[in-house]
Amino acid sequence: MSSAAHETDVVIIGAGPVGLFAIFECGMLRMRCHVVDALDTAGGQCAALYPEKPIYDIPGHPRIDAADLIDRLVEQAAPFSPVYHLGQQVTALVQDGERFHVETSTGTRITARAVVVAAGVGAFGPNRPPLDGIEAYEGRSVFYMVKRREDMRGKRVVIAGGGDSAVDWALALAGIAASIMVVHRRPKFRAAPEMAARLDQLARDGAIELVVPYQLHALAGAGGMLTGVDVATLDGVVRRLDADVLLPFFGLAMNLGPIAEWGLDLDRSHIAVEPSTCASSVPGIHAVGDIASYPGKLKLILSGFAEAAAAAHAIRGRIFPGEVLHFEYSTTQGVPGLAA
Amino acid sequence: MSSAAHETDVVIIGAGPVGLFAIFECGMLRMRCHVVDALDTAGGQCAALYPEKPIYDIPGHPRIDAADLIDRLVEQAAPFSPVYHLGQQVTALVQDGERFHVETSTGTRITARAVVVAAGVGAFGPNRPPLDGIEAYEGRSVFYMVKRREDMRGKRVVIAGGGDSAVDWALALAGIAASIMVVHRRPKFRAAPEMAARLDQLARDGAIELVVPYQLHALAGAGGMLTGVDVATLDGVVRRLDADVLLPFFGLAMNLGPIAEWGLDLDRSHIAVEPSTCASSVPGIHAVGDIASYPGKLKLILSGFAEAAAAAHAIRGRIFPGEVLHFEYSTTQGVPGLAA
Repeated sequence: MSSAAHETDVVIIGAGPVGLFAIFECGMLRMRCHVVDALDTAGGQCAALYPEKPIYDIPGHPRIDAADLIDRLVEQAAPFSPVYHLGQQVTALVQDGERFHVETSTGTRITARAVVVAAGVGAFGPNRPPLDGIEAYEGRSVFYMVKRREDMRGKRVVIAGGGDSAVDWALALAGIAASIMVVHRRPKFRAAPEMAARLDQLARDGAIELVVPYQLHALAGAGGMLTGVDVATLDGVVRRLDADVLLPFFGLAMNLGPIAEWGLDLDRSHIAVEPSTCASSVPGIHAVGDIASYPGKLKLILSGFAEAAAAAHAIRGRIFPGEVLHFEYSTTQGVPGLAA
Repeated sequence: MSSAAHETDVVIIGAGPVGLFAIFECGMLRMRCHVVDALDTAGGQCAALYPEKPIYDIPGHPRIDAADLIDRLVEQAAPFSPVYHLGQQVTALVQDGERFHVETSTGTRITARAVVVAAGVGAFGPNRPPLDGIEAYEGRSVFYMVKRREDMRGKRVVIAGGGDSAVDWALALAGIAASIMVVHRRPKFRAAPEMAARLDQLARDGAIELVVPYQLHALAGAGGMLTGVDVATLDGVVRRLDADVLLPFFGLAMNLGPIAEWGLDLDRSHIAVEPSTCASSVPGIHAVGDIASYPGKLKLILSGFAEAAAAAHAIRGRIFPGEVLHFEYSTTQGVPGLAA
């Protein structure tokens, strides 16, 4: 049905890791959820941009690939029977007394008592470097994400960028690619100190070449297949790097889309929230994960998990105002059908 | 050596799950840690009180036994070579300019640039019900914790208490114990709504008997072995419950011990912190996990994980004040020796 109408406790906008965990936290408080995501599958960036990327900082998972984390979170939410509306964006959000009416791009309509926005950076897309003719190479030898590490085996890889993604992929592809050169316009990388140190070590060992301070200048190749990448210093010295693949990591463009129109207080393209409840400026609408902003905010998935718990508890208190809940130890919670 | 002297970046007091994850978070920011715990093993309550208890609300772990969670967290911290000082309590904490000097009950001395207190409820012990002669049964047929679920197989178990622990253990032992009766002085249980509903369902199914509103009155038995538990209503009606085992779950006694003497602002036996940094009232001393208090605080392990991250980042900023760190995505962090 193109115009299905649903009624639920909570609508979660965004099915990335934090949105998925919000289902679980709401479920533990006996609130039912519907989840809307623009992508065709749950998982957000984890599924769409880097399913094979190892993640190291999920507590209790010394190392887990992004896609596996998503699988676990979907499994953890499943006992609470969430209803997913995928491949559609929320186009309208209207408040009607104590209720919110949500409508999506495919005509789904949902009425809920609260809204949790877990939309990450919104409708995300990579920032494209301004290189003539780059479109012809995209998807063939220029990639803004690495879906399978094995695709890079034996390739001469040039990575461009100076942030966490550039550094992390340089490390993740060492030993797989034939060669790795990392182009950055500054000598210092903006990455986790431990990772930056590891990159420096690989560079000293000769496993990676740091091409700094240089920036991308031009592409060489034919038929969509690169043969080289020209890089230049600020004063115009150009150098040719032999390359089969270019991976530009210049961040994701943030695009709140319709969310920007809902009258929520924003803080530089993020939704401003009160951190202990993740409440936005509109009562009943909460924001968690990368899209939420408050003083001292860390954009870590694990922080988003805690925010999802805070939002769920605040929503429960709002929907059932007379009730006193008692949560001393998380260890004593359980899931129906699994606890016995 | 009984009076070893050590120098490190951060001393973590408490090796429970949150203290263990603080090692990882500090390590990612290239800060070395020493960890002190009164118990002989890492894991805090998870290891000492309920190693076999399944936990359901660790994000990305649909179900994990407490001891397994601890194993994973120890493994996750290991690349950062933490130094554990177990079986000893911190007896003194003295500030000396920018440094803190810590001394333990076995004479270990550690100098550090910051302190993270992750001490849970402090030196914990169960609240004992006021029943004549209960000492004779403790450890034989009265237990304040369940180390192995299998120990309860075929037993007639009486559980006393109305909180999460009572409810959770009633559910966890269903199908293992020969019978389960749950004694609570009120008809309603103070547990996660989902779990309370599950308990009610098992009671309706006849798998568990709820003995409410009753409280413990006397023990019957000989030689340390129970044969029955007498319970009474508020107006004195006494009922005998046949029982092999009594599990009283009346919470843990909170005992801050020497921590109370360190001049930190307290909030009802908890350390008051600023939530975005988990900083206590003494600069350089942070508190995370169950021992930390701030408005809206949830005593969940997953919230403690996020607090550990917040504390580590704040400490890094304090120790290296000139530095600008950039952490956009947790997925792009990694661990030395594992990332390539």
